[in-house]
Amino acid sequence: MKRVAVILSGCGVFDGAEIHESVLTLLHLDKANVHYQCFAPDMPQQHVINHVTGEVVEGETRHVLVEAARIARGEIKSLSELREDDFDALIFPGGFGAAKNLCSFAFDGQTMQIQPDVLAVCQRFAKATKPIGLICIAPVMAAKIFGESVKCTIGHDQATADAINAMGAQHVSCKVNDIVIDEQHKLVTTPAYMLAQRIGEASAGIEKLVSAVLERC
Amino acid sequence: MKRVAVILSGCGVFDGAEIHESVLTLLHLDKANVHYQCFAPDMPQQHVINHVTGEVVEGETRHVLVEAARIARGEIKSLSELREDDFDALIFPGGFGAAKNLCSFAFDGQTMQIQPDVLAVCQRFAKATKPIGLICIAPVMAAKIFGESVKCTIGHDQATADAINAMGAQHVSCKVNDIVIDEQHKLVTTPAYMLAQRIGEASAGIEKLVSAVLERC
Repeated sequence: MKRVAVILSGCGVFDGAEIHESVLTLLHLDKANVHYQCFAPDMPQQHVINHVTGEVVEGETRHVLVEAARIARGEIKSLSELREDDFDALIFPGGFGAAKNLCSFAFDGQTMQIQPDVLAVCQRFAKATKPIGLICIAPVMAAKIFGESVKCTIGHDQATADAINAMGAQHVSCKVNDIVIDEQHKLVTTPAYMLAQRIGEASAGIEKLVSAVLERC
Repeated sequence: MKRVAVILSGCGVFDGAEIHESVLTLLHLDKANVHYQCFAPDMPQQHVINHVTGEVVEGETRHVLVEAARIARGEIKSLSELREDDFDALIFPGGFGAAKNLCSFAFDGQTMQIQPDVLAVCQRFAKATKPIGLICIAPVMAAKIFGESVKCTIGHDQATADAINAMGAQHVSCKVNDIVIDEQHKLVTTPAYMLAQRIGEASAGIEKLVSAVLERC
């Protein structure tokens, strides 16, 4: 049985992992009869957003691992416990948490940094040529993970695509229900809610991503 | 196009709506080409549970509608805005939020009360013979909604089944991937994570529930 580590960044599209993308990733892994384990970095969130108003909740602090545990029904581990020998692939759902907690893209654009533990895990998988799946906005991390040109997609948002190219990756336009594969680096990406208007659209792309990641394990 | 109101009770299995069940409900509604709208009561949660440790977070307050908005990607309305003329059916995902925020079953067992706004909405739909779907633990509300014997399931947990029967409903044992239908009351129920060991099992039952609810609209 293949084993996939799913890396979450909190719980909620505006300050954490996008919930639909996260659950759909788990669903499609389970349907493929794959063992998955959720992980998240053990660190405070950048901030908390009220998901009704879209505004920052001043003075409130939440924790990436503790909130991500909601998506994982409590079955989650700290990213520091992730050993690459135990897993065949990594998948990162999107949401602003990926661009705020896992890296600083939401604040710094193309001068962003990846959180050091996240970067180290990704680079170990990349070095072992184990496949990595990046969903939605998560592909902004691709250039810094691989340290060289790598094909990826966030759909067709021009400003984000330009930033990805400026960091040294190669952005490829992609439809909502499709994926982009860089065969050399075993990197699979899909736009999901960068483009999706409906959950079914996100599901179709994520199902293809999961399938392509598993084929390359 | 059919229109379904999905009633959430927060965000997270231990103190809110079960996230997988909620997302799977939206997925299967979308796949059936149905218009859905999420609602939640505008009230404080009973408490906040740390989903890593399972313990109550003392002194922290969260809000059912605001947390449920995370599952709905911000597209949510207060339950007080739900007009039964605008929807053909109601569906309630489970999670402890259903048994803590929407009713008091988690604290009071068979002497529980349903939150008044939730009860009023359900009774208006029941009176209009519009179908209602109750997932996981949510069927504990069935007896008080219909005020008479009605068939429902939470799987086969004996203590919960006994409480349901004591309140005047008729519990029917059910497999994880199946549903129980009370044709007279147009009530559809499925065990989901009362029994599910895997997300795919919950998905199979919820898909059948959504289908059976829509057939009865």
